[in-house]
Amino acid sequence: MAGDLLIKGGRLWAGAGLDWPRGVVEIKAGRVSWAGAEADYPWAEPPVEVLDAQGGLVFPGLVNAHTHGAMTLFRGLADDMTLENWLTGHIFPAEAKWVNPEMVELCTLLAAGEMLLSGTTTVCDGYFCMKAAAGAYARAGMRAVVAQGVVDFPAPGVPNPARKMDVCRDFLEDCCGVHALVKPGLFAHSCYTCGPTTLRAVSEMAQAYGVPWFTHLAETSQEVREVRGRYGRPPALHLEQLGVLEGLTAVVHGVWLTPGEMDLLAGRGVAVVSCEESNMKLGSGTADLPALIRRGITVGLGTDGPASNNDLSMIGELGATSRMTKLDAMDPTAMPAAKTLELATLGSARAMGLTGLVGRLQPGYAGDVVVLQPKAPHLTPMFDPASALVNACRAADVRHVVVEGEIVVRDRRVLTFDLKAVMAEVRALAEKVRRG
Amino acid sequence: MAGDLLIKGGRLWAGAGLDWPRGVVEIKAGRVSWAGAEADYPWAEPPVEVLDAQGGLVFPGLVNAHTHGAMTLFRGLADDMTLENWLTGHIFPAEAKWVNPEMVELCTLLAAGEMLLSGTTTVCDGYFCMKAAAGAYARAGMRAVVAQGVVDFPAPGVPNPARKMDVCRDFLEDCCGVHALVKPGLFAHSCYTCGPTTLRAVSEMAQAYGVPWFTHLAETSQEVREVRGRYGRPPALHLEQLGVLEGLTAVVHGVWLTPGEMDLLAGRGVAVVSCEESNMKLGSGTADLPALIRRGITVGLGTDGPASNNDLSMIGELGATSRMTKLDAMDPTAMPAAKTLELATLGSARAMGLTGLVGRLQPGYAGDVVVLQPKAPHLTPMFDPASALVNACRAADVRHVVVEGEIVVRDRRVLTFDLKAVMAEVRALAEKVRRG
Repeated sequence: MAGDLLIKGGRLWAGAGLDWPRGVVEIKAGRVSWAGAEADYPWAEPPVEVLDAQGGLVFPGLVNAHTHGAMTLFRGLADDMTLENWLTGHIFPAEAKWVNPEMVELCTLLAAGEMLLSGTTTVCDGYFCMKAAAGAYARAGMRAVVAQGVVDFPAPGVPNPARKMDVCRDFLEDCCGVHALVKPGLFAHSCYTCGPTTLRAVSEMAQAYGVPWFTHLAETSQEVREVRGRYGRPPALHLEQLGVLEGLTAVVHGVWLTPGEMDLLAGRGVAVVSCEESNMKLGSGTADLPALIRRGITVGLGTDGPASNNDLSMIGELGATSRMTKLDAMDPTAMPAAKTLELATLGSARAMGLTGLVGRLQPGYAGDVVVLQPKAPHLTPMFDPASALVNACRAADVRHVVVEGEIVVRDRRVLTFDLKAVMAEVRALAEKVRRG
Repeated sequence: MAGDLLIKGGRLWAGAGLDWPRGVVEIKAGRVSWAGAEADYPWAEPPVEVLDAQGGLVFPGLVNAHTHGAMTLFRGLADDMTLENWLTGHIFPAEAKWVNPEMVELCTLLAAGEMLLSGTTTVCDGYFCMKAAAGAYARAGMRAVVAQGVVDFPAPGVPNPARKMDVCRDFLEDCCGVHALVKPGLFAHSCYTCGPTTLRAVSEMAQAYGVPWFTHLAETSQEVREVRGRYGRPPALHLEQLGVLEGLTAVVHGVWLTPGEMDLLAGRGVAVVSCEESNMKLGSGTADLPALIRRGITVGLGTDGPASNNDLSMIGELGATSRMTKLDAMDPTAMPAAKTLELATLGSARAMGLTGLVGRLQPGYAGDVVVLQPKAPHLTPMFDPASALVNACRAADVRHVVVEGEIVVRDRRVLTFDLKAVMAEVRALAEKVRRG
């Protein structure tokens, strides 16, 4: 039956603090129906399909809680420059010229292929022309929340900003309930690109349709200065004062949050998504994850877009987040490996509204599983699989990937679409971008 | 002839600021004899062996200017703990029990395999039982400076600290001029594990034998406090006062150097090797690379040992160094991709005494070359190969590796020794370590 699969022969990581026994994951109709030690599994009823992990590490699919997938087209187009120069001098003009539904579908497919190959099974993608992005993730067999971007100026697919909420409504009407794996949401870009009226409209529409919504918040000190200057308070307090903080699913970055803003987010149940590599590359700063976690705030991890990272590997984020948190705290105990893995699975899932569905290998959760090949020299020897994953593992160590009980990557090859053809098309389009 | 090779069909990076034409590298007797655009190459005299880069990126082999190779055995043995607990509670006891010449040869071979597969062709390795390490690198066909470790307490292979300089002399006598690719050196561990007499003895012996020497310096604030407390001055001033700074090849870490110490290092021609991932993981701090570079100090990059990183990939260090420098300076222009690559090649080579021999694809330099496969989704599209290498590339993208004109890795397989057998032996030994 579709979505039925038995994964055996590997070492199982079922969550922080749990051991790695030789384990079995049984998936029925896309959901985990049994997970645990091989010795305890009732072998009576053999399933239709078996995936032999062959001594691999079996863990929940990684969850990328923030990216802009279609920006793969602009990967490496402009680096090593100030955020302002990067955005206004290069990225915004390139987006105005090249972003359209066909480009979004094509370049989001490339993003999906890259993410699946690096063990990411679920993504939260905020960009424009998101009906096309939803189609791409559905075609790739990847779980996604696709959030339509909202700004107060003309944007790809939204030439008239006065009609932006109509575009959002059309998107939600078109996408709600259409794809089994892909859910819609909204992405109000930020407090400096969305005025109070827009933020309130996005909040209300998300509530009306019962979909998650997100916004970039406190990414740079410049942003905080700008918001303080315009509204007289820092960004999270600004959202609270507008009455939109309650119901906001997650804020992205949260580098410059004050302790008072953190308390407010904790009180309102708003999650924070940290994008460590992007914040480093753009010189933005570092989110204080221990301070957020201490307050009970849900913390998820994301890669950010491929124009500011420049890859979409959550395995890279695991290492960067663990190391950077230790450095920032000047304390090598500040972010243990198992905790980092928990943020990149359960934390990220919660930060995109998928609480209880994604991020654990436990009965009732989605059958989203990664099998890692532990035989490379950089993983030899292996005293602690969680440490190996966070501190030494690389995307190429990912061998098989399962989403909703379906094998979408087998032996490092994407099965759901022709990734090679997609790459060739993106290269051809990039050649046009290069010529200007 | 041995060491003769023509590499063609790829895009060539010959140094920072240079373009990436479709290029050719000709190697004769192990040295680059010609490098440049394919159109300019005099094709008259075909060499014996040709390596077709097939559209790959061709660049100088990466140079790991600091590691402790044999510590692969202790990779992931103890993480997420304070430096003191890690060292005295876990690493030192494990070393006392398990480190011997056989272990060093075996575990250094594993390190060599891992480094070659990730595009590193030259390494500076400081540890104990270094005659065994020299044999391992020679067998792997990897270029190395192997530096005998020196501390004032009993160490592996040096049960009686009173005889440590005899051990060093024997090592230098045994190793000088023996291996074509492997040169000996000395590694005085640090100012807190080596007293003034030891530091002077190491400096004098290095000078007498004409070999490079190294020391860990200003890695943690704790170290600086300790040295200040004991000698009344910060570490670099302490070395200067002992008269050993002149002639010291490089200091490793340099996280806590004062501006005055930096000026002193610049004046004495001492290089600094930065180990970004290790410094982050141990929560030590970040070296101020722009401040060092502004003073004309040679800066190299290293992975540090696999117990504190936990891998030996210089490709990972490229990304971490570039991102961390940008974050530390709060300025995304602080460490451009091409500059980062220069540090990891030419800078590292200079920091281990290989100036003029290693780090560039120019006539007279060593024929140490890496060919990278640029076809993966995370490298698609590619507007700037230097940016791709630093910001998105992974070790698995390395396809061929050439050292001294000999192909040592072809199609991601090590040709010089049986890496699979070495990994199996290390796993068996690690199982004994686990049992205690």
